[in-house]
Order: sequence, then structure tokens, then C-alpha cells
Amino acid sequence: MISEEVLKGMFQPRTTPWRTSITKVEPDRLTTQGYPQEELIGNISFPEMIHLLLKGVLPTKNQEKLLQAILVSFCDHGITPPSTQSARLMASAGSPVNACLAGGILAFGENHAGAIEISMKMLQRGISLSRSENLSLDEIAQRLTNEFTENQRKIPGFGHRYHKEDPRAPRLMELGREYGCFREHSQLAMSIQDILHERKGIKMNIDGANAALLSDLGFDWRVGCGIFIVGRIPGLLAHIQEEKTREDPFRKLLDSEDLKPGNDGINSF
Amino acid sequence: MISEEVLKGMFQPRTTPWRTSITKVEPDRLTTQGYPQEELIGNISFPEMIHLLLKGVLPTKNQEKLLQAILVSFCDHGITPPSTQSARLMASAGSPVNACLAGGILAFGENHAGAIEISMKMLQRGISLSRSENLSLDEIAQRLTNEFTENQRKIPGFGHRYHKEDPRAPRLMELGREYGCFREHSQLAMSIQDILHERKGIKMNIDGANAALLSDLGFDWRVGCGIFIVGRIPGLLAHIQEEKTREDPFRKLLDSEDLKPGNDGINSF
Amino acid sequence: MISEEVLKGMFQPRTTPWRTSITKVEPDRLTTQGYPQEELIGNISFPEMIHLLLKGVLPTKNQEKLLQAILVSFCDHGITPPSTQSARLMASAGSPVNACLAGGILAFGENHAGAIEISMKMLQRGISLSRSENLSLDEIAQRLTNEFTENQRKIPGFGHRYHKEDPRAPRLMELGREYGCFREHSQLAMSIQDILHERKGIKMNIDGANAALLSDLGFDWRVGCGIFIVGRIPGLLAHIQEEKTREDPFRKLLDSEDLKPGNDGINSF
Amino acid sequence: MISEEVLKGMFQPRTTPWRTSITKVEPDRLTTQGYPQEELIGNISFPEMIHLLLKGVLPTKNQEKLLQAILVSFCDHGITPPSTQSARLMASAGSPVNACLAGGILAFGENHAGAIEISMKMLQRGISLSRSENLSLDEIAQRLTNEFTENQRKIPGFGHRYHKEDPRAPRLMELGREYGCFREHSQLAMSIQDILHERKGIKMNIDGANAALLSDLGFDWRVGCGIFIVGRIPGLLAHIQEEKTREDPFRKLLDSEDLKPGNDGINSF
Repeated sequence: MISEEVLKGMFQPRTTPWRTSITKVEPDRLTTQGYPQEELIGNISFPEMIHLLLKGVLPTKNQEKLLQAILVSFCDHGITPPSTQSARLMASAGSPVNACLAGGILAFGENHAGAIEISMKMLQRGISLSRSENLSLDEIAQRLTNEFTENQRKIPGFGHRYHKEDPRAPRLMELGREYGCFREHSQLAMSIQDILHERKGIKMNIDGANAALLSDLGFDWRVGCGIFIVGRIPGLLAHIQEEKTREDPFRKLLDSEDLKPGNDGINSF
Repeated sequence: MISEEVLKGMFQPRTTPWRTSITKVEPDRLTTQGYPQEELIGNISFPEMIHLLLKGVLPTKNQEKLLQAILVSFCDHGITPPSTQSARLMASAGSPVNACLAGGILAFGENHAGAIEISMKMLQRGISLSRSENLSLDEIAQRLTNEFTENQRKIPGFGHRYHKEDPRAPRLMELGREYGCFREHSQLAMSIQDILHERKGIKMNIDGANAALLSDLGFDWRVGCGIFIVGRIPGLLAHIQEEKTREDPFRKLLDSEDLKPGNDGINSF
Repeated sequence: MISEEVLKGMFQPRTTPWRTSITKVEPDRLTTQGYPQEELIGNISFPEMIHLLLKGVLPTKNQEKLLQAILVSFCDHGITPPSTQSARLMASAGSPVNACLAGGILAFGENHAGAIEISMKMLQRGISLSRSENLSLDEIAQRLTNEFTENQRKIPGFGHRYHKEDPRAPRLMELGREYGCFREHSQLAMSIQDILHERKGIKMNIDGANAALLSDLGFDWRVGCGIFIVGRIPGLLAHIQEEKTREDPFRKLLDSEDLKPGNDGINSF
Repeated sequence: MISEEVLKGMFQPRTTPWRTSITKVEPDRLTTQGYPQEELIGNISFPEMIHLLLKGVLPTKNQEKLLQAILVSFCDHGITPPSTQSARLMASAGSPVNACLAGGILAFGENHAGAIEISMKMLQRGISLSRSENLSLDEIAQRLTNEFTENQRKIPGFGHRYHKEDPRAPRLMELGREYGCFREHSQLAMSIQDILHERKGIKMNIDGANAALLSDLGFDWRVGCGIFIVGRIPGLLAHIQEEKTREDPFRKLLDSEDLKPGNDGINSF
């Protein structure tokens, strides 16, 4: 005979189980954040679903519109990013689509798309500081820009590799105001822009604008890069599709004729 | 003296350059499929942008609504998929968010999410056949189901690992009709469902429903898995975020006490 | 009261557990294929360990030497492969080393490194056919080359993107003979080379040589690409290290000045 | 007419080219670190090639033996690591081998395999400090252990999730002495072990041992994780192969019967 107590002791799960509060899966029932999925499908938009998954609640109409605009702004930046080039290299080499997408995502390093998180972190820290030390946003803006400049670091979210004036940033800020979502993080970002424009003639770029707005929408900086990826994936997919359908497979992107003997010994193409 | 002709001959680029028709990048100007991006931001939805990137044109209002519903239906399936578990394992191990997302995407193999492409391919081939051999959809449905059954292969898009009746499939088909997008691929899928329901009691699942609808929206089967990934990425991100914020790092998902000496020599936990 | 029998029935694990015969892990004991790891460390070479892990037994001395040579031959091919370029793009973008390695590995698609598996599969199928249909290797060689040529497909393992005569292939074949590992797959490959050299002036390349030798070492074609990756990973790592330590971060590999307005409308760099 | 000056202005390369000093690729010639590859193949071992690629020179015989032992020690740790589980999940889902390998590599996060780099960094910093501040290794050992303990951080390279006494660490240290490669980093690690063993009863693990020995072999901490991956890849490959050949595809690793309605509302398996 085995008593209940002994039994419980024997079969104590000794591992931490998989568990989640996001979606409950039962036979014939899928419930996400409390909503049966077949009630969500056709009744909410994709950005509303994204918000529901990440924040646990549906957004207001204005929050939805802003998130929609932010995601659209992330979608594609042509051939120039290393992530798009990596994805296209892999597509050319014949890797399946999911591997090319994964490859593109892996190219988002500290120097590329990491900027959005660093920018969000800076703004969120700035707002914390302004509260805990009872400082105005202008004072915080001064402090942050000085910190970065003294350490000879570029301020994330300002300036741009390709554009003197990133055309997408002012548009996003304008929408932030229009949708009533322009709050303290955006104000702080504008103060920083005033200082940098005066000192160096540079302005906010898309990372800075979206960092400010995503912060004002209540997203923690740690999901910043992830949200960027959600927005950028359709563009990556379009590039992979284009490479696979319009270009010859395994295009010779570097011709061996460039590698003639007699080239400088150790450094060669 | 060097003539222009000789010059062009000398400096013939010997490599195929990067090139794209998706987004043109110039200083201060980003133009996607002909539209300046700052005109798109705030004026089109994220699914409209996705359609624009992949098909080169904006969708109709009804097409947009259907694409929206399809993307929402892809978003999350809880803890059960290997892709979500892989992403969470990596999150637990402390990998950065983008690596976890990439890892989750890599788990979409032939047996997992590959189904949507195989289903689209089957339906698209079926419609081609019906045109070239002038057969009715019912006749094609018979032929396809027989082909798969004779080769002892499961028909992609029907039946499900967890659900006897996938709750999302009928909802999607209903929306397809409501939005006037229910066309030949969907009709073919319904015919196949009739046959399979009679023979084996199984019905269409989400892959089958979306395969039919995406085909009727005009997407080639080769981007099927990619579109699924576009829809699933927000769910993966939510799981990664949850694992990193609510669980201890590097959870012991398999306890060594299970690996006592004396276990069956060669096969052990 | 609960009897042992009822109990076992109730608590039947309904999931397939993780299990392996490769390495048994117990507290303070790690046993790989029956050998305690601390007895292997310092007593066997890395290629012997690789063979032990993949084939379950240690190789003969000659097999070890050949595997060693094969792995050395895989190590690096400079800047030219898309995999190395992808890894360097990611390194430049600041991704951590493991992400860059993963990215490089993802670029091994069907057209790049997939060749070694396709070549092994062809040779292994050829030897099967020669046994089942009692044909000589020359006859099989004829049949295989005709099959590929009639379908206008390149024969995997022969010819090369950069080299008219791949310098590594004859060296490997010579070693195969020297180590007494040159068997039927290698003979078949030589027969194919004779035919192709006569018809098209092309010879075996490294994929073909290693495909033949790995097959004669008894590796199934399905691990061919994996073994190539084992050999190539040190080269990828060296390139990532070089990019991160010797080049500026986030090098502008495509200048926006090339993207002047007035360029041909839709196709642009 | 085009003058030379105008010409140079027009054709100024505006992009940084791909370049490397690792392997020069010319038609029919591959030269790695100055050695023609066909001279390396069959004449040097795989670990010698690894050393040549990463350090630019061939190792001494003793250095080769130690590197060999280190790589063998990295090869496999059974089913327990998240990286191996991720790779097997993907293999089960039907992903191709290279995607599974990439996925396994992506699971090496800060809490898993990152330890070897953190350990190398700590030891290398310790030796720098001992030189610049003219302190003995025992004094440095005290300082480092105090630093970590005061910040409630675990000291990387000591203790282990599964083993009270990692069986591989003493074996590696012994080989380090035998091959005359046991130098200041290893001495520092032994001093730290003495302190920790006294205070907490914990000893060096494989990360600590290899961190010390790789540092004494002259490898910078930034390639530590990469060298671990070079050593671990064969084990990952063996697990992927085993999962694909011995287990049913897409094993149900979590049964839906566990997901009965009535389970605790929000937290469910």
C-alpha cells in the first residue's frame, strides 16, 4: 500500500515546468490574455494583438494608431542595412526563407538596431532621474548630453548614417502629438534635440523618435529591439523574396579576377 | 587620352551589385514602392504596409481586413510549439532578445510551420491542374486526397496535434466569405475537408484555412512560411519577455537527480 | 488504497522524455559512448572525439589521419564565401561572437555547402545501385553523369566557382590512398572525374573529394554538411575576430552617395 | 577627354572593401597565413590549423596537445544543456542540420557558456592588475573573490550546476602542468580555488580550468566563447543526428491532455 503522502513525495516534480500567462492551450480552445482567439480574429487589428500580447491589455484607439505608425516606420530601409544584406546573401546561397530571416535578425547588433534600446534606456533613466532628483526635463537633457559627450559617445537616437534630416522623425513626433501620446519621454527627447541641434547641427532620427514614443506608450526599453524586429521582419521578407525570385542563385558578389597574384601579400580582397 | 568607351570597358563592374525595387534610399528621402515613407507613416496600417512590401501595391479595404485577421490568427499558440520552447530555453540561458527570436524562427522546420507552405503549394497546384486539365474542384479534391493517402502522407492543413476541431479555422473561412475573398483555393480546401471529414472525421486547421485564404489573396506558396513568421513574431517576443522577467535565469529544466547511477546503461535521461 | 499496477497506469509518462545514448550525465561523472570523459581528455585527439561522438566508436589510426586532413581542408576559404561575408557583416554590426557564428552557419544553403551532401548522396546512391543492379563503377559513373547532364544540372563535387583545378582535391585523394581509405565511393568519384574531364575539362573539387572520402569512412550523407560545419567553424571564428579587432565598427559597406536622385527609378543600389 | 585627376575623383572607391590577412584566395591557390593549403592538408592536425587561424602561427607540440585536450573536454555534456535541448527541439521539428546547429549556438547566452569568457576576462584582468599594482597572485585572488562576493555574484569558473566536483577540471590542470603550459593565469585560478574551497567548499569547474589554460595559451578572453563553440559543435551535431534518426519526428514533448480545463486559470502548462 502506498499512502498519499509517500506518493506525493515520490512524484514531486523536480523540474520547473513550462508555464505562461499569455495563451492557454486546451483541446479546441485557445485563450490569449483571457480572450478566446476566435473572438479576436476579425475583431482586432494586428497592432492591437501585438499590444495585447506584450502589455496584457488592448490599447486605446489612439495608442493603436500610434503603434501602427511606429511599426510602419520600421518596415524597410532598402539595401543599406547589414541585416538586409546578410539576409540577401543567405537567400542567394539558397538558404530557406526562415533561415534567411533568422540570419537578418542576428545582424541586429549593438551598432545596428541596438540603438533603439539604448535610446529608450537613456530616456527612461532620464525620466526616473528627473523624478527622483526633482529636476526639470531641460536640466536632465543637459546632463544626459554632457554625459555622453564627455565620454566621447554618440547619443543614441540622434544623427544618422545616411540622412542629415531623417524624414521619418518629425512625422512620428507630429503623430505622437496628434494622438495625445506625446508625454515626458518625447518632451525630453525634444529638449535633447534642441541642445544637439544648437551644438552640432544634428537632429533626432527614427530610433530617437520611436524610442521616445514607445517609452510614452509604456514599453520597457528591454523590448525595444524586439518591437523593431516585429516591424522590420516584413521588409526583410520582401528582400529575401526579391533576391530569390529576381536574381540568379549564388550570385558572384566578389569576382576572383580581383584576386590576381601580385596583390599586396597579406591584405587581399 | 582615354576615351569614354575605353573607360567604360576598363571599369566594367565585374560583380553583380546590390539592387532592389522595394525601397530607394537617398539622403533625406526614403521611397518604398514609389511612396515617400513619411507619407505612409500615419496613413496606412501595418498590414497595408506588409502587403505593399510583398505585392508591390496597396491592398483593397477588404483584402486588408482579411490579411489583418490572418496575421492575428498566427500570433501565438502558447507554450506548446517547439519554436516557443526553443526561444524560451534561450531566453532562460541569457541570450539577447534578437538571438532568442532568431532561434525560435529556426525551429520552424518541415514538420512545424512548413505545413502552411506545403498546403499552399498543394492548393495552388490543384487550381493549376483544374485549369490545365479542365477538371472540377471536386475532382481535383478527390485526386489530391487520394495522392496523399496512397503515399501514406498526412494532408497538410487538415487535422491538428492538439485540437479535434481547430477553433480558428471556421472563423477565418467565415471572414473570407464576409470580405469577398473566398475564391477557388478556399473552395478547393472546403471540398477536401468534405472528403476528409467523411473518411476520417478530421477537419481543416489553421494552416489549411490560412493557406487557402493567402492563396486567394494572391500570395505565392514560397512566402507562406515567411508570412506565418511575420504573424508569429509578436507571440515569440511576448514569451521571451515573460521568461526573462518572471522566471529565474537558467532554470534547471532537467534535474540531475533523475540521472542516478544504475539507470539503464546506454539510454538515459 | 492504490495498487502498484493502477499507479503505474495513472502516472504513465505521456510525453517522450529527453534521452540519449551519447553522453550519460551523473553527478561527478560524465560518460561519453561508454568512456569516462576524464579518461578521454588528454588521451584522444579532437578528431578521434568527433568520430566517437558521430559513429559511436573510436577510429583506426589511419581513419583518424584522414578525418584530420578532411577537417583541415574545410577550415577556411577567405573572404569569398557568402557565409564568411554574412558573419563579418554581423561582426561589423556589433553582434556577439556566437550570433555571428550562427549567422555564418545559416548561410550554408543548397547552393553553398549543401553541395557536399548532394555529392555524398549521389555517390552513396551510386554504390547502392551498383550492388543492387550488379553494375560496374564505370557504368554507374556514366549513368550518373548522364542523369545530371540530361536534366541540365551541375554535378555536385566537380568544377569550382574560383578554381579551374581545385588544389585541395588531388591532395586529399592522395591521402585517401596513403591511409588505405580509398574505397568504392572514391573510385566512383574518380570515374566520374574521368568522364567530366573528357567532356568538359572539369575536375573534382573539395566537395567531391571529401564527399568520396567521408563516404568511404562510413559517414551517411545526412551528416555531410554538419561535418563541413565542424571543419569550417574555426575559419569563421577567425574572420569574426579579425573584423571585430581590425576594422572600424559598422563600416559603411555601401555609400549613400551612390544613391543619387536621378538614378534609374525603380532599380537602385 | 578625361584627365587623370577627374578620373580618380569619379572612381574613388567610396566603400571599405572586404579584406583579410587570414586566407588569400587566387585562382588555383589558397594560402592560409602564408602556407599553401595543400601543404597543410595531411601535414598538420585540426587543432594546429585552429591555432594557426586564430593566432597566426602554428603552436608548439605541447601547446597543440593542450589545445587538443581542451577541445575534447568541450565536446559534449549530454542532454542537459539548453543549447542541446534547443538543437534537438529543432531537429524534431524537421529543421535542416545547419539551422539546428545555429539554433544550438544561439542558446549560448550570458548564463550558459558566457561563463568561459567572463572567467577568462576575470583572470586576464587579475594578471594585469598583479603586474600594474605589483601584487602577488594570492593578493589578487583575495581581491577578486571579495569583489564578486560583495556584489553577491557567483565567481565564473567555480562550482557547477550538476557536479560537486567537476571531474574534468583536475584532469585538465594536470595536463597543463604536464605540457609545461601551466602559467600565471592557472596559478591565479588555483589560488582562487583554495580560497573558495575553504569558504564554500566549491572547486574549479571546466570553464574555470579551460579559462585559465586558454589564457595561458595566449588567447584573448573575447574568443573564449568562440573556442568553446568550436569544441562543442561536434556534440551538438551528434545530438541532432540522434534525434533525427532515432526518434519520431515532431515528438509531442508536451501532451495536451495535461492541459485540461479547470487547471489553474492563468498559469497553465
